[in-house]
Amino acid sequence: MNKYKWEDNIRKVEPYVPGEQPKDKNIIKLNTNENPYGPSPEIEGILKADDSVTMDMLRKYPDPTAESLVSELARFHGVSPENVFVGVGSDDVLAMSFMTFFNSDKNIIFPDITYSFYPVWAEMLKIPYETIPLLDDYRIDVDSFLKDNGGVVIANPNAPTGILLDKASIIRILEQSQSSIVIVDEAYIDFAENGSSMIDLIDTYDNLIVVRTFSKSRSLAGLRIGYAVANKTLIKFLNDVKYSYNSYTMNYPSIMLGTAVIKDDKYFKETISKVVSTRKWFSEELKRLGFSVLPSSTNFVFASHESISAKDIFEAAKAEGIYFRYFNSPRIDNYLRITIGTDDDMKTVVAFLEKYLNK
Amino acid sequence: MNKYKWEDNIRKVEPYVPGEQPKDKNIIKLNTNENPYGPSPEIEGILKADDSVTMDMLRKYPDPTAESLVSELARFHGVSPENVFVGVGSDDVLAMSFMTFFNSDKNIIFPDITYSFYPVWAEMLKIPYETIPLLDDYRIDVDSFLKDNGGVVIANPNAPTGILLDKASIIRILEQSQSSIVIVDEAYIDFAENGSSMIDLIDTYDNLIVVRTFSKSRSLAGLRIGYAVANKTLIKFLNDVKYSYNSYTMNYPSIMLGTAVIKDDKYFKETISKVVSTRKWFSEELKRLGFSVLPSSTNFVFASHESISAKDIFEAAKAEGIYFRYFNSPRIDNYLRITIGTDDDMKTVVAFLEKYLNK
Repeated sequence: MNKYKWEDNIRKVEPYVPGEQPKDKNIIKLNTNENPYGPSPEIEGILKADDSVTMDMLRKYPDPTAESLVSELARFHGVSPENVFVGVGSDDVLAMSFMTFFNSDKNIIFPDITYSFYPVWAEMLKIPYETIPLLDDYRIDVDSFLKDNGGVVIANPNAPTGILLDKASIIRILEQSQSSIVIVDEAYIDFAENGSSMIDLIDTYDNLIVVRTFSKSRSLAGLRIGYAVANKTLIKFLNDVKYSYNSYTMNYPSIMLGTAVIKDDKYFKETISKVVSTRKWFSEELKRLGFSVLPSSTNFVFASHESISAKDIFEAAKAEGIYFRYFNSPRIDNYLRITIGTDDDMKTVVAFLEKYLNK
Repeated sequence: MNKYKWEDNIRKVEPYVPGEQPKDKNIIKLNTNENPYGPSPEIEGILKADDSVTMDMLRKYPDPTAESLVSELARFHGVSPENVFVGVGSDDVLAMSFMTFFNSDKNIIFPDITYSFYPVWAEMLKIPYETIPLLDDYRIDVDSFLKDNGGVVIANPNAPTGILLDKASIIRILEQSQSSIVIVDEAYIDFAENGSSMIDLIDTYDNLIVVRTFSKSRSLAGLRIGYAVANKTLIKFLNDVKYSYNSYTMNYPSIMLGTAVIKDDKYFKETISKVVSTRKWFSEELKRLGFSVLPSSTNFVFASHESISAKDIFEAAKAEGIYFRYFNSPRIDNYLRITIGTDDDMKTVVAFLEKYLNK
């Protein structure tokens, strides 16, 4: 019997568990895929300037359309503002997309190993779903996605594997799934080779929606900005649901600083190039130390040691103030997801591993 | 026939239409119930200080629990942090509450004239609902709320009428509705007389949840902060849904500045007292000019003129750069909702009305 009379009417869910956010400042935090370099230096000036984020702006409601941010993103991607939707991080954009586009009785499909929020949203929103196992080498099994479905979600590059799926394969899925919406979650695409994004195909495939975040390549996890790019019809449906949920999702600092960060393309490219270069030498170092490392197109690596368990390494590193991400889940419970930090961060990690593994 | 093959699976909704946010700075903006006084002056110093909102903070994810903000709110209300839930404005908190608590097959009930977002959330989330007509004098018909239901939503003071419902009446509804959750939306309660809030009863009624906003009395509409206060069990269910939707809803500037604003109680009380005093003389002026004015416990008044239509006055004022809110809806389409601005703003309004009405 329920303790409370109203308890039958509660939506009971198993929430997603985000990576730990330790408050100690002396740790090396490589567990939530943040960017080791700060956001564009322009941001600091804008935040502290007297005439940018003012008390009069904070007093009033922000622009519900976040027009300046939407327009700047449209310019950056060479699309129209009507092709862009913004939200409170890509999690908000993805949750709204699930709510807007996945209302069929058929299963939506996504890989068994991918961003672990997808099944949480499906459960929360009572959307039926089916997971498609990754192949033995952790690549996406494209053929198994070519089936009747209520929607498709592909993280590309996939997380936590870091592996990029080629564009031709995603096109096969889009063509097979013309009666449903295909979400391509490109949270990490800026760390992959140029030309990997699906954004240039939004007018070719009316069922394609591409989701992006400011939390990785844009170094603005603390502001919570994500966006979707798709044809105008899909963006309109998404906006209708957003305006049925919360008119004003983006606050003034997000709109103001998010707009500024997109304008600084030079700094953006420089920091991505630094992360990619660090990823390359760090992956080689891991291999030298006896790890197998999946081929990463992201700002993290996914690695498994030949003799020591991932859980042991995770705990030993944590005791030394180095935080990795460990998932206690089938098929990946002997892997560590390690965010790429600065060169100094990763040298400290290598030194720790050398000592811990007696190499 | 649908133009798109996927169109059957779209959630199609009629979104809420927020009040106009004109960009011209020379207008007197009395259409969205913002506070005419800025937020606590402490805020400016904190925002611009070198060590408060830093680039390193923006780079990293914010605290998903927004602990500093939650704790400060708990202290302010004399409750435990486990009694407090925060979100992206009270709209986010209300939408999550509808999602969490209203999952019965029975109708949820709310007044026919109230915050116009309630039916939008119900439609969006496919929650059955029934509206209870206000009495002829625009007060809530308490007796008609004493019926079997799937949930109750009461804005208190109600909007756009501005009328406060006495606590004893809400208690009658709480006692009658023990099998469902009663949401009391206290967006405007700080402008009502002390002791009107239901927060002191959260431990007496396990089915009570009280929702508040920083957008009115706290002058921080631009930051998007709202919160709920209830017993720990309800707050836990709400957090489970929140963590199943978006782990990090509150960004760094919101957490930092929201926490600071609660600490400045002196400034808070001063600005409320100024708004209430302006409301009193402005209401008298409106009566002198031939308006009937509902008794307001908020930072706006709801008024109807004896001979000139609300729509005509609305349009004439807008042409002069004075923005009121006009609702083209049954029963209230001859009323204007006028936000209380500064004394100077309201003197300008009175001067305009005197001229327009030839008084």
